[in-house]
Amino acid sequence: MRIAVLAHGKFPDEAKTAVGLLRYGPHEVVAVLDRDTAGDRVNDHIPDVRDAPIVEGIDEVPDIDAFVIGIAPIGGGFDESWRPDVRGALGRGVEVWSGLHYFLTEDDEFVRLAEEHDADLWDVRKPPGDLTVSEGVARDLDAEIVLTVGSDCSTGKMTASYELMEAARDRGIDAGFIPTGQTGIMIEGWGVPIDRTISDFTAGAVERMLVERSEEYDVLFVEGQGSIVHPAYSGVTCGILHGAMPDHLVFCHVAGREQIHGYESFDIPDLGDMRSLYEDLGSSVAPTDVVAGSLNTAHLDEEAAREAVDEFGAELGIPATDVVRFDCDEILDELDLERDP
Amino acid sequence: MRIAVLAHGKFPDEAKTAVGLLRYGPHEVVAVLDRDTAGDRVNDHIPDVRDAPIVEGIDEVPDIDAFVIGIAPIGGGFDESWRPDVRGALGRGVEVWSGLHYFLTEDDEFVRLAEEHDADLWDVRKPPGDLTVSEGVARDLDAEIVLTVGSDCSTGKMTASYELMEAARDRGIDAGFIPTGQTGIMIEGWGVPIDRTISDFTAGAVERMLVERSEEYDVLFVEGQGSIVHPAYSGVTCGILHGAMPDHLVFCHVAGREQIHGYESFDIPDLGDMRSLYEDLGSSVAPTDVVAGSLNTAHLDEEAAREAVDEFGAELGIPATDVVRFDCDEILDELDLERDP
Repeated sequence: MRIAVLAHGKFPDEAKTAVGLLRYGPHEVVAVLDRDTAGDRVNDHIPDVRDAPIVEGIDEVPDIDAFVIGIAPIGGGFDESWRPDVRGALGRGVEVWSGLHYFLTEDDEFVRLAEEHDADLWDVRKPPGDLTVSEGVARDLDAEIVLTVGSDCSTGKMTASYELMEAARDRGIDAGFIPTGQTGIMIEGWGVPIDRTISDFTAGAVERMLVERSEEYDVLFVEGQGSIVHPAYSGVTCGILHGAMPDHLVFCHVAGREQIHGYESFDIPDLGDMRSLYEDLGSSVAPTDVVAGSLNTAHLDEEAAREAVDEFGAELGIPATDVVRFDCDEILDELDLERDP
Repeated sequence: MRIAVLAHGKFPDEAKTAVGLLRYGPHEVVAVLDRDTAGDRVNDHIPDVRDAPIVEGIDEVPDIDAFVIGIAPIGGGFDESWRPDVRGALGRGVEVWSGLHYFLTEDDEFVRLAEEHDADLWDVRKPPGDLTVSEGVARDLDAEIVLTVGSDCSTGKMTASYELMEAARDRGIDAGFIPTGQTGIMIEGWGVPIDRTISDFTAGAVERMLVERSEEYDVLFVEGQGSIVHPAYSGVTCGILHGAMPDHLVFCHVAGREQIHGYESFDIPDLGDMRSLYEDLGSSVAPTDVVAGSLNTAHLDEEAAREAVDEFGAELGIPATDVVRFDCDEILDELDLERDP
């Protein structure tokens, strides 16, 4: 599919979904919409992804199959300044994807336009209506399950899951991805937004995805969310941990981050203690261990990054890397995955 | 208010809401509906609550202000055999309360009857629509916050919270209750069903209740839910733990229970380890400790109950009691609550 991604005023640093689609998506991004950087090209800002022009609005976008809202402001509201772009896409009969809390399928104008032009609206953050409680079966599945966990939100859990999956595939291992958030769901074209499920169904929603995919794959990398030490989102993290019953965990952190992002009066605890806490909490339901760490060092130079990774590994007492900057070999070796016979 | 409580086929052992209302509710229960035990009286089954007749159906119920569905079958569905009773109550213009997952306010007949007879329908399990994420402020509230936690569901967390609140009030302490489940909400007439909130808002919903009540009370007893070692519901428990940021925890367990109820292939971990896990997980966000244990010994004789409580205290390494059978003095002493000056 050919897609255009809206990221007004936020590209690239605060456009997690847009960047995720550029880096890991199967779709061809033919344009990014950002009034602030219009005229530049994607590669002017992110060198290591496929290039595309950055444009002012929908009128400059060539033929596309889908139009994606690739940013999510705090609160998840719809910014009215985006309305002409969405209107223009629907007017062309193009489907529109959104990961906002604000549902396009509940917006009268968009619903009417979609009907008129035979276009679909996909609210990625709307969970299926038939979720249920977990049955506690994930530990019995044949596939090896690896969950990314972290010290905070936005520490690179989705990124680590993708990098590990791709590196595992490069080794000939039949690896799959279990998407639990909006970006992963848009990349994969399926999945459940775990943070929007009814709280009783958090574990059950993850379990259902694993059951569905475990026959197809030898190893499943589950995209983690939040952190068990997060004052607001730990319930989601805990539900995923116990719903997935992962064989192994990979711990993600951002070099130098010492407080919870957006909750700066809360210190991130000692990383070694947090490793034990993840292992103890997870293993209280099904045995698991943290096998390796992945540190986001994007803001450091090469030498500082190497040092930070070494220190991070020493704090955790396990092998560590930066899965984007360096490679995944050490983590994959620790996971000891078996190639499909 | 004068109320009647439906508990067909389940009274008293599987009628948690009915028994909770009889034991702790401010309302006068004038009849219990149970076809299986009709003709008996409540005190024939539960001696230590206010007595009421058990009847076959709504036609035998005297004047009431509210009619309550006091049972919740697995899955939370509405049993069609109850329809004539609900119909009869609405026909009298009496309001109907339900804690089912099935919403009476989405049942066409009940909605129509309620309108015709100017009666209200209260779906206790429908959370408010304006919940948000936690701001992380519960630790800063003036009120002392005490949360009940446990080894499993149905270990007596609501009961312990009520018994402790009442015993604290007997000591002249200004104590309040924070309801998080259907029974507590019906007893108190307000509250949020935490297991039905959007998972991202679990902590925020608890926090909001605490902020609302913290000015009024010196100590708030928060009704806990589930268990952090439960394969299906741990996300809810973790969200409450971090949303409430309790100063202290009281640990609840049922004597002799060794597996998770309904998930019998999952062993309940060592109780001492579980105490540490609650303290480590809670304290990773705001300092807390488990000060005492409450053991449900209802199924044991007096001597066996004393022995079980002693053993339970030894396993946890803290004082223990059965708050219903014995008293709350030791726990209150440990909490060291201050009387309102």
